[in-house]
Amino acid sequence: MIVLFTDFGWRGPYVGQMKAVLAEAAPEQPVIDLLHDAPVFDPLLAAHLLAAHVDCFPAGSVFCAVVDPGVGSEREALVVRADSRYFVGPDNGLFDVLAARAAEAAYFRIHWRPEHLSNSFHGRDLFAPVAARLARGEAPEALALPLWRHFESSMGADLAKIIYIDEFGNAMTGLRARTLSCSDRVRVAGQRLAYARTFAEVSPGQPFWYPNSVGLVEIAVNRGSAADLLGLALGDALSRA
Amino acid sequence: MIVLFTDFGWRGPYVGQMKAVLAEAAPEQPVIDLLHDAPVFDPLLAAHLLAAHVDCFPAGSVFCAVVDPGVGSEREALVVRADSRYFVGPDNGLFDVLAARAAEAAYFRIHWRPEHLSNSFHGRDLFAPVAARLARGEAPEALALPLWRHFESSMGADLAKIIYIDEFGNAMTGLRARTLSCSDRVRVAGQRLAYARTFAEVSPGQPFWYPNSVGLVEIAVNRGSAADLLGLALGDALSRA
Amino acid sequence: MIVLFTDFGWRGPYVGQMKAVLAEAAPEQPVIDLLHDAPVFDPLLAAHLLAAHVDCFPAGSVFCAVVDPGVGSEREALVVRADSRYFVGPDNGLFDVLAARAAEAAYFRIHWRPEHLSNSFHGRDLFAPVAARLARGEAPEALALPLWRHFESSMGADLAKIIYIDEFGNAMTGLRARTLSCSDRVRVAGQRLAYARTFAEVSPGQPFWYPNSVGLVEIAVNRGSAADLLGLALGDALSRA
Repeated sequence: MIVLFTDFGWRGPYVGQMKAVLAEAAPEQPVIDLLHDAPVFDPLLAAHLLAAHVDCFPAGSVFCAVVDPGVGSEREALVVRADSRYFVGPDNGLFDVLAARAAEAAYFRIHWRPEHLSNSFHGRDLFAPVAARLARGEAPEALALPLWRHFESSMGADLAKIIYIDEFGNAMTGLRARTLSCSDRVRVAGQRLAYARTFAEVSPGQPFWYPNSVGLVEIAVNRGSAADLLGLALGDALSRA
Repeated sequence: MIVLFTDFGWRGPYVGQMKAVLAEAAPEQPVIDLLHDAPVFDPLLAAHLLAAHVDCFPAGSVFCAVVDPGVGSEREALVVRADSRYFVGPDNGLFDVLAARAAEAAYFRIHWRPEHLSNSFHGRDLFAPVAARLARGEAPEALALPLWRHFESSMGADLAKIIYIDEFGNAMTGLRARTLSCSDRVRVAGQRLAYARTFAEVSPGQPFWYPNSVGLVEIAVNRGSAADLLGLALGDALSRA
Repeated sequence: MIVLFTDFGWRGPYVGQMKAVLAEAAPEQPVIDLLHDAPVFDPLLAAHLLAAHVDCFPAGSVFCAVVDPGVGSEREALVVRADSRYFVGPDNGLFDVLAARAAEAAYFRIHWRPEHLSNSFHGRDLFAPVAARLARGEAPEALALPLWRHFESSMGADLAKIIYIDEFGNAMTGLRARTLSCSDRVRVAGQRLAYARTFAEVSPGQPFWYPNSVGLVEIAVNRGSAADLLGLALGDALSRA
């Protein structure tokens, strides 16, 4: 399957144009919209968010991921292969977290270019066609050159920041929950929050942290908005406390 | 087809993860997003909204419906078969209105469990896999135990409340329009509103009630927002007047 | 493929009901959501927006386009064939811009009617079934009568107004970029804006105009919202300056 992960939002004609390209170039492939409200202009937060969701998708999945403030500049376009999944998108760090955490990862610089490449919409003109060709079984070597990439060991490390706030005001962090235990408290926005197994375990209105369904520490409130209650914003720091 | 009805919103990675499960487990089945902004935390309003939309879908459709404030608690998970359609979701009243209105309905308690069941996302881990298996033709008995359920006759009755407000500010009610006649007025938010056949029949800015496209009494304003003009909110009561 | 272009918004049950009709009537056809936030109640702005996006889709595509403030009134329903693509929707000017710009265009008035036609949702009851039948290869003549339409030459002309504002605050105009040169300035909201090739070429916070990815003049700000910075709204006039 082809998986879309962008900061385009659902509004507007952008996602639709990418899907039209995919429907023409890889009509047999299901296309899944994982997320279209990735942190805008922030490839680092987006990289942690993407890395947390990779395991939900089967081997062979091709991710077309676009958080790309540098579109139209000299930044390169990448294919990354990590643990039998492919990732297509800009070379701005978006794939470095998941690649550093993978058992095996290889980077390729895309040299293929479409007949017409706009300056502002590489998602439609470059990344979607490449994703379609990979999904149809072409090897990355047909479109891209192997690229040696030095990984700092820190690239795969957890990020003690808020990386996503959902529609309900729940705040995902870049901390993997397995690094904490149930007795740990989390300090964020000047408050110390205790663990709960799930929403139904705490009183309405009470904030807590819990291991969310993709394994991240998430700050939440039963039947309320943690972001509103605690005044949380993307990028806010947190710590064990 | 598999029909999704949730309160997840379009933002965030939740709908996408459910669709990834469905694409793997039932790749041949079309998946239709009926609604992702069902009344949050309010299974009763959602039950009336869902019941009004069931007839738009063909026999054999499998609804995966998630309005589930009790996720992670002891509430049961259900399959309901009603008039040749299947419904999968939490046992919190969400299916009781449509079942009470059906000519034939049967309840089943899901005993099947996935290898990994998160505490906060049964839509992805439990309901979607069960929906996929039903859509592929498995009998509910393979996954669930028949459950005897006593229906109060009132369960299928109309609800004289606002159950949904759409993007334009039109307010759907839980009243079926066939229970009113064109000469009836509807009282809501301190105002008495007359019937109109459709938007184009009244002056811009004028509020009215009309039988909407799924047969419910709907409060609307031509080229304006009824919710803003009249100060309407989910759950507001109305009456014939 | 079938392409949806509406002002329904993503919220609510409207897009889903149209897709259920399409999935039943044309199960083999991919359905692409081009846009669901077309200018509400404004077929003229929507006509320019639609015309700019037609070329992104292959010959044979069937557009189901609904910006239809007159639904339920006496306005006619159309099929338009323009340069090997089909368009289904209301007869309110929505297709006149693209037809006037096409090398070849023919209009048909839809006389086919479904068993049940609601007063408020022709997208589901009339336009979607017709689009499905065209997508399956039926000729428009089976559903509609040829209609002679006189085109003013001005119908295909550019519109010097803002026709769409996206989620990021970028403002598309009805001016095709090929009518301007890089040395032209654009006057809008009391400001004169210079050309830039793309976002990455200007400083963060600086407004500019650029040829967007569908060939329109677009007003933008690097890493900011042009609509907020300049106070832009749909329909605002602009000029070369």
